[in-house]
Amino acid sequence: MFTLTPQLRLVRPTHRLLSTMTVSQKPLLVAVVGVGLVGSEFIQQLLSIPTHSSPFKLISLSSSSRTLFTGRETPIDSATSWKSKLAGSSSPADLADLTNKLLGLVKNEQERVAIVDNTSSENVAGMYPSWLQAGIHVVTPNKKAFSGDRSLYEEILAASRSSGAKFLNEATVGAGLPVIAPLKEILATGDRVIKIEGVFSGTMSYIFNEFSTAKSGGPSFSSVVSVARDKGYTEPHPADDLNGYDVARKLTILSRQISAASVSSTLPELQSFLSVQTQSLIPSPLESTSSGDEFIQKLPEHDAHFSATREAAAKENSVLRYVGVIDTQQGVVKAGLEKYPLSHPFATSLGGSDNIIMFHTERYSPRPLIIQGAGAGAAVTAMGVLGDLLKLV
Amino acid sequence: MFTLTPQLRLVRPTHRLLSTMTVSQKPLLVAVVGVGLVGSEFIQQLLSIPTHSSPFKLISLSSSSRTLFTGRETPIDSATSWKSKLAGSSSPADLADLTNKLLGLVKNEQERVAIVDNTSSENVAGMYPSWLQAGIHVVTPNKKAFSGDRSLYEEILAASRSSGAKFLNEATVGAGLPVIAPLKEILATGDRVIKIEGVFSGTMSYIFNEFSTAKSGGPSFSSVVSVARDKGYTEPHPADDLNGYDVARKLTILSRQISAASVSSTLPELQSFLSVQTQSLIPSPLESTSSGDEFIQKLPEHDAHFSATREAAAKENSVLRYVGVIDTQQGVVKAGLEKYPLSHPFATSLGGSDNIIMFHTERYSPRPLIIQGAGAGAAVTAMGVLGDLLKLV
Repeated sequence: MFTLTPQLRLVRPTHRLLSTMTVSQKPLLVAVVGVGLVGSEFIQQLLSIPTHSSPFKLISLSSSSRTLFTGRETPIDSATSWKSKLAGSSSPADLADLTNKLLGLVKNEQERVAIVDNTSSENVAGMYPSWLQAGIHVVTPNKKAFSGDRSLYEEILAASRSSGAKFLNEATVGAGLPVIAPLKEILATGDRVIKIEGVFSGTMSYIFNEFSTAKSGGPSFSSVVSVARDKGYTEPHPADDLNGYDVARKLTILSRQISAASVSSTLPELQSFLSVQTQSLIPSPLESTSSGDEFIQKLPEHDAHFSATREAAAKENSVLRYVGVIDTQQGVVKAGLEKYPLSHPFATSLGGSDNIIMFHTERYSPRPLIIQGAGAGAAVTAMGVLGDLLKLV
Repeated sequence: MFTLTPQLRLVRPTHRLLSTMTVSQKPLLVAVVGVGLVGSEFIQQLLSIPTHSSPFKLISLSSSSRTLFTGRETPIDSATSWKSKLAGSSSPADLADLTNKLLGLVKNEQERVAIVDNTSSENVAGMYPSWLQAGIHVVTPNKKAFSGDRSLYEEILAASRSSGAKFLNEATVGAGLPVIAPLKEILATGDRVIKIEGVFSGTMSYIFNEFSTAKSGGPSFSSVVSVARDKGYTEPHPADDLNGYDVARKLTILSRQISAASVSSTLPELQSFLSVQTQSLIPSPLESTSSGDEFIQKLPEHDAHFSATREAAAKENSVLRYVGVIDTQQGVVKAGLEKYPLSHPFATSLGGSDNIIMFHTERYSPRPLIIQGAGAGAAVTAMGVLGDLLKLV
């Protein structure tokens, strides 16, 4: 058996040891871009960490119209006054100027800096390569950079690799649910993904949890979509959810993660989320409706089609769910409506606007790893972003 | 809108910036203690990372009888020869000597060192405070230190706080499933746990998934336990599973995590896992059976009791599950047999030896965050351990 020497407990750390740790113990300077629903909630959560124990200093806020830059000596530390401070700033929103200031902190002061992008802007996403290249970490729930043009994604990977600055995007898939981190761990520890299958859209989840249940019949498709819109679960124009793009973006993010980790991936090299096989649920005659109101008004004309699809599933004791699938054996990435038997977790245990994601891997086989819970909403999305920021310290 | 300057993409990192990152880019030196089922699998996974891209150097292995210490210049890098190298070492297992050698690397060479404890030994667990105090990180699936004496747990917290060295124990609950990391994130981002409820034991999961199903009747309790033992799902003496201690240990680990993060926790201050309200499933006349064989032989005498409990649940359209509950509103931590209606995820979607853990929090409310999947087995446990090690780099 192991030999023990109780005296070992008396060993004390040396100053040299502590000195090697200074870098990671310096506060991380944080600049937030985007102060909408998720951004505001994120700032509240960040500032709710007691100042004396917080590993962060919030030194800049940017809305779409103005920027507040305080620097590290007088960081923003009040959850009650940040809004008025930002509103009182006379500086217009200028990301180039912000970048230069942050760059100065990194280069001249050897500070650790992270930008948190809480927008859904493609323009902001386009800045990531320059930020990463400059050694500024990027944390974001913004899907655009990781699901858009492949060239931007590759620039991001290259910039991060060259400087060592990290990009963390857990909240781009499943909001606060642990999805990307477990996938990274599966890949990094030498497991292999066989298939990922899930309900990735909170909106689609709500719509089909209401529309297609174990009971036969049910409400009309248009009435469910209309209620979802009234509750704020859909975009103002519901076609922006029913086109399946949100799911295709999330699949692109996960699929690229898998391909990047594999020597030879069987998955298609997605040029953007538009190259995912995506089934749109927008009836063709409604494809060009310009307003959400018009869409909702005309949708009942197509209820019969959706009801017939539901009936066909019910005859097989199944329900309809709009899912995303990444199948590494078939080399397929697709988003669309599928039937699931009542005994399947997608049929029975979903509710509200839950996401559910099943990972079938060599190690999680034959039974998958399953993650389920709210996959949308400001509070859980902000938690996912702050969780990523905590990984940097 | 945001002003953009495309030239920013041309910014290059400076050498000063890179120099601030050297500390985290130095390889992490790893010493493994314990080379049993989980230990061997862990070493295989670690060594399957290509050497040129591995952030780790494996510099020591210890079995219960011998230690191999190579130092950092000639690390162990072959998945095929580590066993014979260790078998060929003439050094007896001596953790005190190992500790001194690692301490030298930390103190004199400013190396970053982690010990991975893949044993289930209380003696090894007792070393954690001295290792942490000396600046050596500890990663482990060994539950003993975190669910045993409160004083040891507090020494571990204090040592980690004082040196900055980390202890990571994701694999102590749910094996490779993400449980402790999501809980830490929930707590660190200011969410509040209302209730954690789950099937935490793979063995108990298997037994009750087989014994109590949606169908009425079913196999006898003793026959299910006997088959589980034959399959290697139970300890050699099944009473070591049926006493509920494994679940109580896991609840202790999670409960202490919650209390440590809360200013005023309503949860009981657990002196050890023995202070968890734990229902034992060992029939009292069998409490002193000395062998597993004798236990299995006498268990049929108590089948009627278990069948009656199952029938009572069935009358309420419910099934039996052995669960752990942490209820912060009631201030209760308990492990025992509970009834769940057929519509509940614990009833319908479990299979095999799955764990399932539901987090009810202020943000994940009314619908919980759910994690489900294999919660035991060498491959997934080792993956949880390696995942923790990756968090250090």
